[in-house]
Amino acid sequence: MSAKVPMFTQPIATLRRDGDGLIVLDQTRLPWRVVEQRLATLADVAEAISVMRVRGAPLIGCTAAFGVAVALAGGAGDVAALDHALAVLRATRPTAVNLAWALNRMDSCLRPLSPAARCEAAWIEAEAIRAEDAAMCAAIGSHGLELLRTFKCAGEGRALRVMTHCNAGWLATAGMGTALAPVYAACAEGLAVEVFVSETRPRNQGLLTAWELAAAGVKHTLMADNAAGLLLTRGEVDVVIVGADRIAANGDTANKVGTYLKALAARAAGVPFYVAAPASTFDPKTPCGEAIPVEERAADELFFIDGLDREGCPGRLRLAPEGTRAVNPAFDVTPSALVSGFITERGVLGVEALAGFLRDVRA
Amino acid sequence: MSAKVPMFTQPIATLRRDGDGLIVLDQTRLPWRVVEQRLATLADVAEAISVMRVRGAPLIGCTAAFGVAVALAGGAGDVAALDHALAVLRATRPTAVNLAWALNRMDSCLRPLSPAARCEAAWIEAEAIRAEDAAMCAAIGSHGLELLRTFKCAGEGRALRVMTHCNAGWLATAGMGTALAPVYAACAEGLAVEVFVSETRPRNQGLLTAWELAAAGVKHTLMADNAAGLLLTRGEVDVVIVGADRIAANGDTANKVGTYLKALAARAAGVPFYVAAPASTFDPKTPCGEAIPVEERAADELFFIDGLDREGCPGRLRLAPEGTRAVNPAFDVTPSALVSGFITERGVLGVEALAGFLRDVRA
Repeated sequence: MSAKVPMFTQPIATLRRDGDGLIVLDQTRLPWRVVEQRLATLADVAEAISVMRVRGAPLIGCTAAFGVAVALAGGAGDVAALDHALAVLRATRPTAVNLAWALNRMDSCLRPLSPAARCEAAWIEAEAIRAEDAAMCAAIGSHGLELLRTFKCAGEGRALRVMTHCNAGWLATAGMGTALAPVYAACAEGLAVEVFVSETRPRNQGLLTAWELAAAGVKHTLMADNAAGLLLTRGEVDVVIVGADRIAANGDTANKVGTYLKALAARAAGVPFYVAAPASTFDPKTPCGEAIPVEERAADELFFIDGLDREGCPGRLRLAPEGTRAVNPAFDVTPSALVSGFITERGVLGVEALAGFLRDVRA
Repeated sequence: MSAKVPMFTQPIATLRRDGDGLIVLDQTRLPWRVVEQRLATLADVAEAISVMRVRGAPLIGCTAAFGVAVALAGGAGDVAALDHALAVLRATRPTAVNLAWALNRMDSCLRPLSPAARCEAAWIEAEAIRAEDAAMCAAIGSHGLELLRTFKCAGEGRALRVMTHCNAGWLATAGMGTALAPVYAACAEGLAVEVFVSETRPRNQGLLTAWELAAAGVKHTLMADNAAGLLLTRGEVDVVIVGADRIAANGDTANKVGTYLKALAARAAGVPFYVAAPASTFDPKTPCGEAIPVEERAADELFFIDGLDREGCPGRLRLAPEGTRAVNPAFDVTPSALVSGFITERGVLGVEALAGFLRDVRA
């Protein structure tokens, strides 16, 4: 992490300790309402992850780590309580490997300790995971900025046009984000950047991205997921940068459903396609994309939609007729052959450098 | 059109004459309400096409033809009135070539006539265009059925799995549809078919497709547009069939935005990708996809969404924060290299047969 790290403070903390509980920014209420929610119990934390009040692979990992501390805070800190907390949190979402990574780290740290020492150590370790996440985001931003500087238009007087998918900004992390970290770093350095933001059906996390870019004063344009192919074909995008939920040992990348379609269209248009993620998103135990479990979420995510009514009050509408069947995979897998490189906290890597990177990370 | 033509009657007529006006099924109210609207003036017809009360390239063509009759019905039938009607209708939507095709045909038929003869001739010619559209749909269904029979699973006891995009069913035509015509023909013959229906943001025409398939008792599954890549990669789809708004002389195909992403993913997965369209959708004057004008529609289509509230009443919600910018192209272009074949009323053609087909059609 030798690169210069830009300063970044989250406008609103995505996650913070509050006594024996947590306070999180409830992302199911964004972009219409800024609402914080206190999570007082293990069940609260598990629910917040499952229903996506907190979301984004890095933030899920941090929140799960704090969830262990919340769970232990109420009791004697015995091994049974630790095991229960780990099992409950592990079951919340299957695809993002940062969740398992953070829980394994909490387990390794806490299991050898006495019950009395475990409770306080859990808060300390969770805080360390969060601080490291913020530092990793900053390093990804810094390395990503170096990459963005290599694009010709950066010196041509026009803005560099970045397309992204879903939300991999500060809302998805404890820091400045992953896919959007290079964008924020570029803006901090005065490099003109604009972002094409994909709506990201069915959960519309693109609206979160639009909201956080607006809050940061970054120029951006919303588009339907379906529009990605045309914009790429027309030469209106210089680079695609997305986050990741799990990267297999061979570089195959699970990310929010729809990512793969953008990767295909970027390749067809000759536009570079980068994945930005910290080491904790790489999973050496998963050999390839086919081995990544893809979460299937409730059909109601397609059938109902939330927004603001004419009076500006939150509302919900039914979109599909009663009795419609739906399939709703939350992720898809982009083969490593479509990935131009991985923007990590240790630098930008090609697929060929992954094996060495994974060895270094584990050392 | 020698193939056996299955019988099909529209459950509700998409378009019918009513005195000197038209009655159309208002597709902006579907799938929640079945509402017919009377179009009494040229302005009514133009508005209905522009705001997509009637939609689908073939139905737009038929409606525009009747629109000329409506316009002439109120006046003396002079050439100035004809020119005005043609100009107003031509300006409603730029991409679907069936619109220009139908208006050119009305022009050729009506211009040589006396003002007195024009009014009645306009109704007769519009009716002929509508009847031909229904016959073309039936022929597409018949030829498409022959194609579907060639898929192995048809004899394997499991349903043939067809993925489609947008709505190219009976709602989009004066007959049984284009992309869905082979599906209806297969069902009529007892061939098991199920359809993956893409939501089709931003206007959600996939909900129209789900609604019309449900009305016809055809098994179907709704999915987010983003899910197409994963389903194709997993081998869950046997064939993709879409409609078209304009097919260039070289076979490049403009269709609802998002079609190109499905074509890319189908090719990557080795799944055949067919375009179903009548001859009127082929435009010999447009040499290639880059020459097809792509309609840019209002950003509000992304910012607002319609549905049913808890009481079952139609409602509208705002999705994006105020001040968001958006880009909203209505179509994209799929290069002919990604098209396995064109299902037309004269048979299924490969790209290499297009030049001969266009010569025959014009002859």
